[in-house]
Amino acid sequence: MKGRLFVFSAPSGCGKTTILKGVFERIDGLKFSISSTTRAPRKGERDGVDYFFITEQEFRTRVRQNRFLEWAEVHGNLYGTDRKQVEEALNCGLDLIMDIDVQGARQVKCAMPEAVTVFILPPSWKELERRLRDRRTDDEDSIRRRLQNAYAEVSEAYWYDYAIVNDAIDKAIEEVVHIITSFRLQTSRLAGFISGLLSQKR
Amino acid sequence: MKGRLFVFSAPSGCGKTTILKGVFERIDGLKFSISSTTRAPRKGERDGVDYFFITEQEFRTRVRQNRFLEWAEVHGNLYGTDRKQVEEALNCGLDLIMDIDVQGARQVKCAMPEAVTVFILPPSWKELERRLRDRRTDDEDSIRRRLQNAYAEVSEAYWYDYAIVNDAIDKAIEEVVHIITSFRLQTSRLAGFISGLLSQKR
Repeated sequence: MKGRLFVFSAPSGCGKTTILKGVFERIDGLKFSISSTTRAPRKGERDGVDYFFITEQEFRTRVRQNRFLEWAEVHGNLYGTDRKQVEEALNCGLDLIMDIDVQGARQVKCAMPEAVTVFILPPSWKELERRLRDRRTDDEDSIRRRLQNAYAEVSEAYWYDYAIVNDAIDKAIEEVVHIITSFRLQTSRLAGFISGLLSQKR
Repeated sequence: MKGRLFVFSAPSGCGKTTILKGVFERIDGLKFSISSTTRAPRKGERDGVDYFFITEQEFRTRVRQNRFLEWAEVHGNLYGTDRKQVEEALNCGLDLIMDIDVQGARQVKCAMPEAVTVFILPPSWKELERRLRDRRTDDEDSIRRRLQNAYAEVSEAYWYDYAIVNDAIDKAIEEVVHIITSFRLQTSRLAGFISGLLSQKR
């Protein structure tokens, strides 16, 4: 039995974090993929829980060794997903959840085509703007920039395997549950049960 | 937007009819595929509802014209699924449900590889035997024969896309709902929404 890697992307304000939290409450056997980073831990962050904190030298070595499924430099810090960690979790039969931007998702899909990609869409730009304003964390410029980025990101949604419209949080959670569960019902995941049945005394 | 064809097979006594009934109560936009047959209508059966009743000559003509997705002769009667009817329903965006045996499902999958095949499994032979006895419709020979057929059918389950173990009817219904809904969340089905969003005034 092998697990699946599910890769989630969404523009800022589309509710991805809330949706994934709800999905973890509803489904067992899920694991969140933890990135490695060269940035310093923030207050409260723990190594191996929030990130794997490593030195830049170590990171660069691993890049050369092709040990990252995907990696990127953001504001001078390096972030990456360790290929072996992903493969080990999948081999244990766990389904892995990865929360990553469009560029990262593209790298993962190229490196591991059997990964399942899911894009979370806003119901409308107006509603996305309203949600960004309601957070009261961004100034006007920042909101404009986030909306522009959102537009660029949505124009990449086409190549994702699945798309969810987050017009109601419970519905969106339920839809992600449908997607993940459907992969658990693939015959390959039930091969053990079927061969057990066929070798059972009738 | 295009619908999907979902093909269901199960050994006798696995609860396929009950499961599909439950699925129709839970999901909208589903249509049951109606077969054409040369057998005479039984009491209460209506043309175009239970079957399309046609003459043997007409059936043979349609076979030669390659108008059936699948067809078979059972106890001297001919049964088949009209390819055009299936395609028209799918083009209307409806998801079609087909209830068919292993041989028929194989023909459909060959003719239409994008069809999704689902096999419903018994939890154990013992439980299947119990269910067959509880129906009180079969004598001992008939129960033996059904169990032997069930074994032969289950040994074909491997090539189906999905497998459901019917150990509890509500769980089995829910699992079929997961599978069908997951296909409705494929990006191709949301292409209209995405292009609408991208052309919307920001």
